[in-house]
Amino acid sequence: MNTTTQPVLFTQEEVADLKKEIGTDSLMGQTIEKLKAELNTYMAMPIDVPGHGEAGGYEHNKHKQNYQYINLAGRLFLITEDEKYAKFTAALLSEYADKYLKFGFHIQRNTNPPGRLFHQILNEHMWLMYASLGYSCISAWLSEQERAHIVDNLFKPMLEMFTVKYGHDFDRIHNHGIWAVAAVGICGIVIGERKYLEMSVYGLNGDGETGGFLAQISQLFAPSGYYMEGPYYHRFAIRPLAVFAEVIHRHMPEVDIYNYKGQVIKQTTQALLATAYPNGEFPALNDASHTMGITDMGAVVAVSMYFKRYGFDKNLVGMADIQQQVWLNACGLALSRAHQAEDNVEPPFWPSVELNEGEKGDRGAQGFLRMQGKDKDIYQLAMNYGQHGMDHGHFDTLGISFFNRGQEVLREYGFARWVNIEPKFGGRYLDENKSYARQTISHNAVTVDEQCQNNFDIERADIVHGTPHFFIGEGTELQAMSAFANQHYPDTGMQRTVMMLKTDLLENPVLIDLYRLTSEGAHQYDYSHQYQGQIIRTNFDYKTNTELHPLGGNFGYQYLWNLARGEVKGSALVSWVQGNSYYTWHGACAAADSEVIFTQTGANDPQFNLRHETSFIMRTTGKDMLFASALETHGYFNEAVEASVDARGKLHCIEVLGHNEIGSVVRVTGDNACLTVMVSNQPNVTETTEHQIEINDTTYSWKGCLAVKQETK
Amino acid sequence: MNTTTQPVLFTQEEVADLKKEIGTDSLMGQTIEKLKAELNTYMAMPIDVPGHGEAGGYEHNKHKQNYQYINLAGRLFLITEDEKYAKFTAALLSEYADKYLKFGFHIQRNTNPPGRLFHQILNEHMWLMYASLGYSCISAWLSEQERAHIVDNLFKPMLEMFTVKYGHDFDRIHNHGIWAVAAVGICGIVIGERKYLEMSVYGLNGDGETGGFLAQISQLFAPSGYYMEGPYYHRFAIRPLAVFAEVIHRHMPEVDIYNYKGQVIKQTTQALLATAYPNGEFPALNDASHTMGITDMGAVVAVSMYFKRYGFDKNLVGMADIQQQVWLNACGLALSRAHQAEDNVEPPFWPSVELNEGEKGDRGAQGFLRMQGKDKDIYQLAMNYGQHGMDHGHFDTLGISFFNRGQEVLREYGFARWVNIEPKFGGRYLDENKSYARQTISHNAVTVDEQCQNNFDIERADIVHGTPHFFIGEGTELQAMSAFANQHYPDTGMQRTVMMLKTDLLENPVLIDLYRLTSEGAHQYDYSHQYQGQIIRTNFDYKTNTELHPLGGNFGYQYLWNLARGEVKGSALVSWVQGNSYYTWHGACAAADSEVIFTQTGANDPQFNLRHETSFIMRTTGKDMLFASALETHGYFNEAVEASVDARGKLHCIEVLGHNEIGSVVRVTGDNACLTVMVSNQPNVTETTEHQIEINDTTYSWKGCLAVKQETK
Repeated sequence: MNTTTQPVLFTQEEVADLKKEIGTDSLMGQTIEKLKAELNTYMAMPIDVPGHGEAGGYEHNKHKQNYQYINLAGRLFLITEDEKYAKFTAALLSEYADKYLKFGFHIQRNTNPPGRLFHQILNEHMWLMYASLGYSCISAWLSEQERAHIVDNLFKPMLEMFTVKYGHDFDRIHNHGIWAVAAVGICGIVIGERKYLEMSVYGLNGDGETGGFLAQISQLFAPSGYYMEGPYYHRFAIRPLAVFAEVIHRHMPEVDIYNYKGQVIKQTTQALLATAYPNGEFPALNDASHTMGITDMGAVVAVSMYFKRYGFDKNLVGMADIQQQVWLNACGLALSRAHQAEDNVEPPFWPSVELNEGEKGDRGAQGFLRMQGKDKDIYQLAMNYGQHGMDHGHFDTLGISFFNRGQEVLREYGFARWVNIEPKFGGRYLDENKSYARQTISHNAVTVDEQCQNNFDIERADIVHGTPHFFIGEGTELQAMSAFANQHYPDTGMQRTVMMLKTDLLENPVLIDLYRLTSEGAHQYDYSHQYQGQIIRTNFDYKTNTELHPLGGNFGYQYLWNLARGEVKGSALVSWVQGNSYYTWHGACAAADSEVIFTQTGANDPQFNLRHETSFIMRTTGKDMLFASALETHGYFNEAVEASVDARGKLHCIEVLGHNEIGSVVRVTGDNACLTVMVSNQPNVTETTEHQIEINDTTYSWKGCLAVKQETK
Repeated sequence: MNTTTQPVLFTQEEVADLKKEIGTDSLMGQTIEKLKAELNTYMAMPIDVPGHGEAGGYEHNKHKQNYQYINLAGRLFLITEDEKYAKFTAALLSEYADKYLKFGFHIQRNTNPPGRLFHQILNEHMWLMYASLGYSCISAWLSEQERAHIVDNLFKPMLEMFTVKYGHDFDRIHNHGIWAVAAVGICGIVIGERKYLEMSVYGLNGDGETGGFLAQISQLFAPSGYYMEGPYYHRFAIRPLAVFAEVIHRHMPEVDIYNYKGQVIKQTTQALLATAYPNGEFPALNDASHTMGITDMGAVVAVSMYFKRYGFDKNLVGMADIQQQVWLNACGLALSRAHQAEDNVEPPFWPSVELNEGEKGDRGAQGFLRMQGKDKDIYQLAMNYGQHGMDHGHFDTLGISFFNRGQEVLREYGFARWVNIEPKFGGRYLDENKSYARQTISHNAVTVDEQCQNNFDIERADIVHGTPHFFIGEGTELQAMSAFANQHYPDTGMQRTVMMLKTDLLENPVLIDLYRLTSEGAHQYDYSHQYQGQIIRTNFDYKTNTELHPLGGNFGYQYLWNLARGEVKGSALVSWVQGNSYYTWHGACAAADSEVIFTQTGANDPQFNLRHETSFIMRTTGKDMLFASALETHGYFNEAVEASVDARGKLHCIEVLGHNEIGSVVRVTGDNACLTVMVSNQPNVTETTEHQIEINDTTYSWKGCLAVKQETK
């Protein structure tokens, strides 16, 4: 035998440093305490290595827990020197070694080939990566015979399966592939067969281009580091990415992995973290759960790795504070110490960023604006003007989401799936995911003629992308972004410009939105807003329906109950309370008449698969059209203490003054003043482009992308 | 002038003790810190004493904040000796004294007469009580001239108004009356006119029976201490009650207030606290907000007073831990010290209690059962079998609510009101409060013939009440309560028996419910369950409606959308996920056929006044009828970490074996065993009553109120 008996991710000095954290109230001390308690609870149950089961079922969960606790128990043995953890790790691994080859393969159920433990090898990769890491922590403690049993009957057959039986899959450049190479590479180190590490890093061919980790990290991300499936999938890929990077750093220093390809590891980690809302949740871009956030283990590992390898950033300290744990190794320790040294840990406040998409960064972008209110509350506005997110993509180019006061205000529905709830269609994606959650109307966007963008054709959607127009992400008073999407509806061009504006007129930054459509022919335009909470008032009469019908028959409309509608002349006001905050939306369009429709999901949902969520839609018809709105955040409501402050807000109305190929001009009027907002509609606008528009004998002129003029009454 | 210059609620020694808490991390230290920060923020704004305004509007809120901060600033001046607090208090009081007599009276808007600051004198009473307390803390610091200005132009006119102009109201025995006497009595001490204290304690006549605090506390509560309007109103009355009791204790020791009438102060405080859910929220009995809890200032004051005056109780320490603050005086200090001395503060776990109603305790009761699960989670089950709660009463006799895992599971809707949200009908009760929230169908009860109990006639409802049958509140394995309501529907008797049962079959206590109806004629019975969350599965086919209609036309049914219905043979299963927990309901009835209807509120709600909440109703028709159900709490769901455990539960079904005037017998079957539950239906049952029922050749016999027999398969 020539297996190593060194832990893969620990030196003796590091172990000694970690040992000192036990019992302290540092994040690392708390992490150790918490994980020890969890492991002790788990160890109190009998060891069980079950056979095959369904995704989300008992067996599946048990195998998953087993690998997590093998990894954890190994590390805790090193750090605490308590032999019970080594015994547990050894016993569990030995039982797997006893049984593994006796398990047949699962029946193949999807495109991912089946393993012996799990229905798809993705999970088996995860199993091997963690089991190898845990094993490496106790291998010196094991007898040679024990080591041989585990290596010969468990690790080697797994490696054989991944690199030979499923060798054709091993070189695939795909986010799942990172798990495969991390598992194989790490297990190779553990059993002392470096060839597996080599093939994991450089691919089966050894060229570093057609497969392997280096090829993956070079090809999977845009130059900005953005991963096209969105943060929900990115945080899943970042886990093996960070783990394996750290392993390569230690065991293959010649690669200089943390500086590889212009620090692609740094770039993509930062790109993931910069999408997160201030409370640590990720916007549910594409198919994604609404609750996934930086407390996910992938993000915990990534934040600790990033801090250790790329240096101090107080946003990372803020994120660790939300995570309330660190990665249990030297990376996490560095972050924990920084956290402890900070007198006053503030929430993460990442700079605004436009993350380009596509291999060359030329296929649109995802824009993220962040601004702090007077009370230091962080506002975040995200807009999608990039690519379609592959098979998990949503048809929502120019869709936005908006967050403040600790909650998502203009909301993403996320996926239609009750993840891992076995009686709910096995926890898998539901039919309603395609027929509702991916449709344009389920987003904060404009739906044309009650149809989905790209006619819900993924192949078509994969070809097109949004076009960035301008991005102003630096200001503390005004930030804005603008983009075009001219290929997403037949014969219809679209441009959306969103901005956050802080003014002395208002207590908080206001979100201003100009959504412009151009077409030779007449269309119906539905400008929709997904909100949560209770309607407080409107400035127009509406009629609630005494019987409910679906709003439409297709493209997601079939799921919307048509609750109420009202005719609007001029500026419409819809005000609601969500949590402790009031929101008042003023919306108008460049048409004499429009209507506002209130909806709730749940129609044609024969198995109660959808959550019941609400929206309001401003609907009008026309050829060229401009929608404009201003969303004011104001006041405070707390039912428990029966307090309500400023339930009305300060803005009065919004007017579309005019729009053409040169620019759009809208006016927002409030208690003491009005704001004239002028936006360039010229694709090639620069900072010096002069604009001039004549509207009703008034000339509006400005230079550059955007101008806001405030007049006091 | 003969005004006292002593603080009403502080001795010098007490002030010195409180001073020591500044900067410590005790609850008192934290309380001081938090209140200081709040006051400093308030003091940073210009002083404003506005004129009249609407309830919930700016002026109303400002006057309210002003009295709170006068009281607080006075105390903080004593404790911190920082003169800025005295100056602020003095400046604010002086400005009120400048303006008060120049304010006319508000226009009378309801039965409560108007004040000069507020639209109803209730608020003016609150103002005076707090302003007097705050004034007493700085009066020694004031010049004699300043004192005279405040006393002559503010306090004396107020006292005159309350005791002369509105003297006819002063002696009313009513919960609002406690505020009146507390304000007048305390202000009397402050200005050195003891006659006001005397009339506040003994009434205008001085007899202690027709008016005044002693008469109020003797007559407002049942012998159990329960206040018939329910905890939401009780916690509002308990605030002046506790404050004034403490004042009387200090300034009229001869009354021996804390021992008055068999310790009625203790009794009623305990009765209030014992209704609270384990998370500190009050069940929304009668008109009540769904979020009101023990963090309300009244409960904070009451918990601190109760601890100081009636001694150590670890449940009070647990409550203080939820409150995260104490009353800022010697009472709170005692509690804070106890809290600090406790190594491991546990959540409050009050004993189960049956709180009788009516002056003599013979008009039914409110039952509260509490049981701890194996994981120490506290389950609470409440049933109303008492009186109608006067003008705020709900028509829900035999209605239940059920709480575990930190959330209300079988839910109260609470009031239909957006409290203090001025644009929402002035923050007042909405029409839907009567037409929906008070109706029987909005509760967890049986509605007969789609009508409301007592035909929604308050006068009729005031006459009748529930009849306790038995109450078993001691057991750690089995607790139960049973009651009759035979006068609430024409020609229909009702009996409900609910129990919580802990068995080795199940991970958690199960709620078992037997709801029996008896009638000569045939009726439609709707057995309704107000739940929240997402339906996971059923064991029967149901059809969701492709267009929605209201379920009925009256008595609250007009607000229920009929979402779906399914036919049931035998035992029905409805399972849902709420938060992190799964719930599975098994229900059956003594009829061959029944149906289950799924509803959501929101029909006929032209102004979006209602929250959208869901229920399921088991409907059947018959004469005598027994509904039986078992509600299992199981598993764990956490979307953020994508974990789902035991989404199915262990129970299979429930059967109604039989019921008659002797008893009811039902069987609950689970994975490994079945439970036979036998309940006495005999009104005069005792512990020794023998019961025997023959059903399908099997004889079921038991002794006493209730028996549960477990058979393993």
